[in-house]
Amino acid sequence: MTKVPGAKSSLIAQRRGQARRSGDKDYQQRQAKLLKAAAKVFQEKGYRAAKIDDIAKAVGIDRASLYYYTSGKEELFQEAVREAALQNVRMVEEIRDEPGAPDDKLERFIVAVMQSYEEHYPYLFAYVQEDMAQIAGKRTRWAKEMSELSQRFNNALLSIIEEGYERGELDPAAGSPQVIALGVIGMCNWSHRWFKPGGAQSAATIGRSFARMVRDGLRRR
Amino acid sequence: MTKVPGAKSSLIAQRRGQARRSGDKDYQQRQAKLLKAAAKVFQEKGYRAAKIDDIAKAVGIDRASLYYYTSGKEELFQEAVREAALQNVRMVEEIRDEPGAPDDKLERFIVAVMQSYEEHYPYLFAYVQEDMAQIAGKRTRWAKEMSELSQRFNNALLSIIEEGYERGELDPAAGSPQVIALGVIGMCNWSHRWFKPGGAQSAATIGRSFARMVRDGLRRR
Repeated sequence: MTKVPGAKSSLIAQRRGQARRSGDKDYQQRQAKLLKAAAKVFQEKGYRAAKIDDIAKAVGIDRASLYYYTSGKEELFQEAVREAALQNVRMVEEIRDEPGAPDDKLERFIVAVMQSYEEHYPYLFAYVQEDMAQIAGKRTRWAKEMSELSQRFNNALLSIIEEGYERGELDPAAGSPQVIALGVIGMCNWSHRWFKPGGAQSAATIGRSFARMVRDGLRRR
Repeated sequence: MTKVPGAKSSLIAQRRGQARRSGDKDYQQRQAKLLKAAAKVFQEKGYRAAKIDDIAKAVGIDRASLYYYTSGKEELFQEAVREAALQNVRMVEEIRDEPGAPDDKLERFIVAVMQSYEEHYPYLFAYVQEDMAQIAGKRTRWAKEMSELSQRFNNALLSIIEEGYERGELDPAAGSPQVIALGVIGMCNWSHRWFKPGGAQSAATIGRSFARMVRDGLRRR
């Protein structure tokens, strides 16, 4: 694979910067299309194995044109993860804001999170495996955005648990909302070590088992 | 820091190998003492920051003598982790084999695991952060042993859940024993991202919250 030489690369970076600042709709649409194709390639091949040429091919442009839209694989991966994380945050905030019983919301939350890992497999898991604190420590704009999204995600779950405690539908004797939230998130996030789509159980089935345990416990009544 | 030159290092390695094969009780005791001191240094400083000199100092021997007992920091860390994991496996197998109700065993299991992370903080967490599959992929003797210990650990938890299902004390409608076990392990293991000893809640308190959620669920009755 030949590397784009520095001078040319810097010229392309300038043109990319100009195009981004211009707010051109056509450019934005093509960029969005590229991101979607990249996410699919990351999904199919994983981040490490995915090649920038695979992504260019998937979207039907040549490698040189691709650099007009992105600085490379890392940026595409970060954008794909950011997009998926943003979708997840909006989804759990919607669940929080819906009417209904907090324990139903908890179930929807857990099932939706498990399904998002299936939908964005494996690149969202690749992100989960990274230590968020380490990423946040990097102080890039992306790391800051991801840290904010992670905070909003946690807050949505906390709100659901707190609402349940306030309404008297969940039992505050269970523990502090923070610890319960960390337990629920842990249950879901640990799936990055073992869940693979197409296995014996779908993400939704696994999510429902987790949700049932969290809502009702394992003890037979 | 001066590196032990290759020739000398290989001579020490030979002497170390002879001493280990000899089964000398004195040697084994000093080795065990060194391991305990190393675990404490890993606990206090973390793996990366811990220096081989710190460990030698903690056990009161000089650096050169230390290499008579170990090849270095990596080996000491692996041994400390293996020792902690072995303790954990024995502990959860004991819980499995005790008489009593499966949901009580589940509670003891969860509390004990959380306490072990507190006791062996942070070096056991440093191991949890590593992807076990990657480690197992390395095919060293240590990786194989760790993979076996991990299997025994999972099996102990599976047995408790299956026993509960068979005795009718836990409700099989909750989900497959495998998925429930992975949820419980995930809840505990994810704590490597957020738990620090000396915080607002002890590991035992957090473990009891998790256990209560798993046994009884969050819904108020």
